[in-house]
Amino acid sequence: MEKILWELVQLVRQQSPLVHNITNYVVMNNTANALLAAGASPIMAHAKSEIQEMIGIAHSVVINIGTLDEYWSESMVMAAETAHSKGKPWVLDPVGAGATSFRDEVLHQLLPYQPTVIRGNASEIIALAKANTTVTKGVDSTAQSNEAVDAARSLVDQYKTIVCISGETDIILGNQQEIFIRNGHPLMTRVTGLGCSATALTGAFIGITEDKVSAVAAAMALIGIAGELAADESKGPGSLQVNLIDRLYTMTEQEFFNRLKIELK
Amino acid sequence: MEKILWELVQLVRQQSPLVHNITNYVVMNNTANALLAAGASPIMAHAKSEIQEMIGIAHSVVINIGTLDEYWSESMVMAAETAHSKGKPWVLDPVGAGATSFRDEVLHQLLPYQPTVIRGNASEIIALAKANTTVTKGVDSTAQSNEAVDAARSLVDQYKTIVCISGETDIILGNQQEIFIRNGHPLMTRVTGLGCSATALTGAFIGITEDKVSAVAAAMALIGIAGELAADESKGPGSLQVNLIDRLYTMTEQEFFNRLKIELK
Amino acid sequence: MEKILWELVQLVRQQSPLVHNITNYVVMNNTANALLAAGASPIMAHAKSEIQEMIGIAHSVVINIGTLDEYWSESMVMAAETAHSKGKPWVLDPVGAGATSFRDEVLHQLLPYQPTVIRGNASEIIALAKANTTVTKGVDSTAQSNEAVDAARSLVDQYKTIVCISGETDIILGNQQEIFIRNGHPLMTRVTGLGCSATALTGAFIGITEDKVSAVAAAMALIGIAGELAADESKGPGSLQVNLIDRLYTMTEQEFFNRLKIELK
Repeated sequence: MEKILWELVQLVRQQSPLVHNITNYVVMNNTANALLAAGASPIMAHAKSEIQEMIGIAHSVVINIGTLDEYWSESMVMAAETAHSKGKPWVLDPVGAGATSFRDEVLHQLLPYQPTVIRGNASEIIALAKANTTVTKGVDSTAQSNEAVDAARSLVDQYKTIVCISGETDIILGNQQEIFIRNGHPLMTRVTGLGCSATALTGAFIGITEDKVSAVAAAMALIGIAGELAADESKGPGSLQVNLIDRLYTMTEQEFFNRLKIELK
Repeated sequence: MEKILWELVQLVRQQSPLVHNITNYVVMNNTANALLAAGASPIMAHAKSEIQEMIGIAHSVVINIGTLDEYWSESMVMAAETAHSKGKPWVLDPVGAGATSFRDEVLHQLLPYQPTVIRGNASEIIALAKANTTVTKGVDSTAQSNEAVDAARSLVDQYKTIVCISGETDIILGNQQEIFIRNGHPLMTRVTGLGCSATALTGAFIGITEDKVSAVAAAMALIGIAGELAADESKGPGSLQVNLIDRLYTMTEQEFFNRLKIELK
Repeated sequence: MEKILWELVQLVRQQSPLVHNITNYVVMNNTANALLAAGASPIMAHAKSEIQEMIGIAHSVVINIGTLDEYWSESMVMAAETAHSKGKPWVLDPVGAGATSFRDEVLHQLLPYQPTVIRGNASEIIALAKANTTVTKGVDSTAQSNEAVDAARSLVDQYKTIVCISGETDIILGNQQEIFIRNGHPLMTRVTGLGCSATALTGAFIGITEDKVSAVAAAMALIGIAGELAADESKGPGSLQVNLIDRLYTMTEQEFFNRLKIELK
């Protein structure tokens, strides 16, 4: 498994997949830079007038509901439908799931298009699983890992998707598979949008391989290790953001394997 | 007073207030990072379909009209009304007040919801006070401090608000109160959106205390001192932006008091 | 020619032209910072309710279709029309021209307002010239330089515009004029939006001189040289972005002339 992950990192660098993002305003710049640093090619486009054509030329699609509104949510649904019908892999980042009923309703519309991957924190995954049965609100910020795993498992089973619960330990759940990645650094939580960058990188990796579970693991390991390397040379969250982009670009095989902490179950 | 300011800095770090921002596209990333670095938790959300719910879970609200349009201005009015009716403190940043009649009309609609704080530069505060009586246009870029103080005073009296005129010296005017803060560095004017970050930080501080005047003073002192510390180690505006975020995160009590230049009148 | 370019760099620093940008979400922050670092004053505003007034107070206008949608494209057309009728110089960045028919249709509406300058990569310039005759789609990513020069020449002739084809060598074509600039660094292609920053800087330079061809050359030389200086001290694309902003601000006459590689034909 470990060997495959690094091969995928190299494959993204070589193949430069075109990743179509419909994401939030806060992270667009960082996300684009994270994708470029990892070797991928970002497109950011949300107009209903061009989404279908744009997805036609992309290798994969990223949908992140961070700063959604009525227009953007319709674009996202159109994008999910298009990706699904064209057989393009897509990843969903349910930012703020459970915080408002609007978010839950939009997520409820997106899920039937079977995201290839869903990546969120424990609270979001729990809220998403709840939103799936009946629209609810409120985020349990003290969400227990076990509860999140149960929620993730229900999403995996119902939508044939892969769920990545990110946190101190990232838990990746596929059909009959469970992978734990223990990379990353606490300072990363003080930089906005690194979760969104992880999602975008996931989009890049699922665009270049049929082994989608390994793709998610490679993306999470890559950003986690880049974060560790960056934290070692950063004075605070400002420099961490800059150094992390550098490290996505410069990371060597040795640095990757020296740091990688992965467990399969 | 000095002692209270540092206590408030620590309180933001400990309580991590949830700050709901409806702000401009240019600064969303930096603003979110400034809030995170200072210890607060940013939310960025503008959809009419969720604003009221989102404000329900936030400790305070930031409204910044930088890149407003018709939809966003309606969201902002809805947010101001909601904050006012729910008793949530909110801060208004009248970016570009006076530059166009559209901006002045939107500000005219926002003011009756009595912002807890208004933070702008001298020209904006003067334009805002004028827009308040009759819609006008044109920014006096050579606005005299005295004229701005008179304008600010009229806003304080009419709306029971606190006005912070930012500049080389930040002037904070409350009911019967006047505070001068002389921190900051000229290079800060060459980085986009540091005024917007000051406003967002103000939003964090008014979310954790009833002493709103001290909250504004603490926010302005914090960013001014962080800017001074950052400028000392920066080669230009690019590194200043990065170092300022680092310094918001790492600032110690000693650094704060060594630099603080405050005067009460 | 060389001497004029540096004089223009100094003129932007002294006169601080007001540059009105209708640009994409991804690059707004960087673009604003690049303009500030070079000495200009950015405005970012897109509301139909204020575009005409805003252009009235600006020295020049930048239109970048990167993340366009139906509303923004209407704003852009309104801005182009206003700039044209008021005689304000404006620059067009046809991001992703040829990728979708929507982009080509919007570009088709913008061109008749005769941009002072068009700046894009070879593929975009070729697609733009094609979109001009009949709406087509698809980007030729292996676009040959010669083909791009022919396409640019047709745009120059038809719209009395200046075209800058950016790439390893930037080619600037005006009426009877052809300038080659060979500055820049390969790492710049791994940072999002540096092309957009080049366009924005072009907007600043055309705002302060009637010699529009030299203005474009000065902008391209400035960012290319800043990129080279920055690359020398950067560990990857993250630090390059930061250092490039620093270098726009600190660049000296000697650094400029030591690096400048220009050829006139």
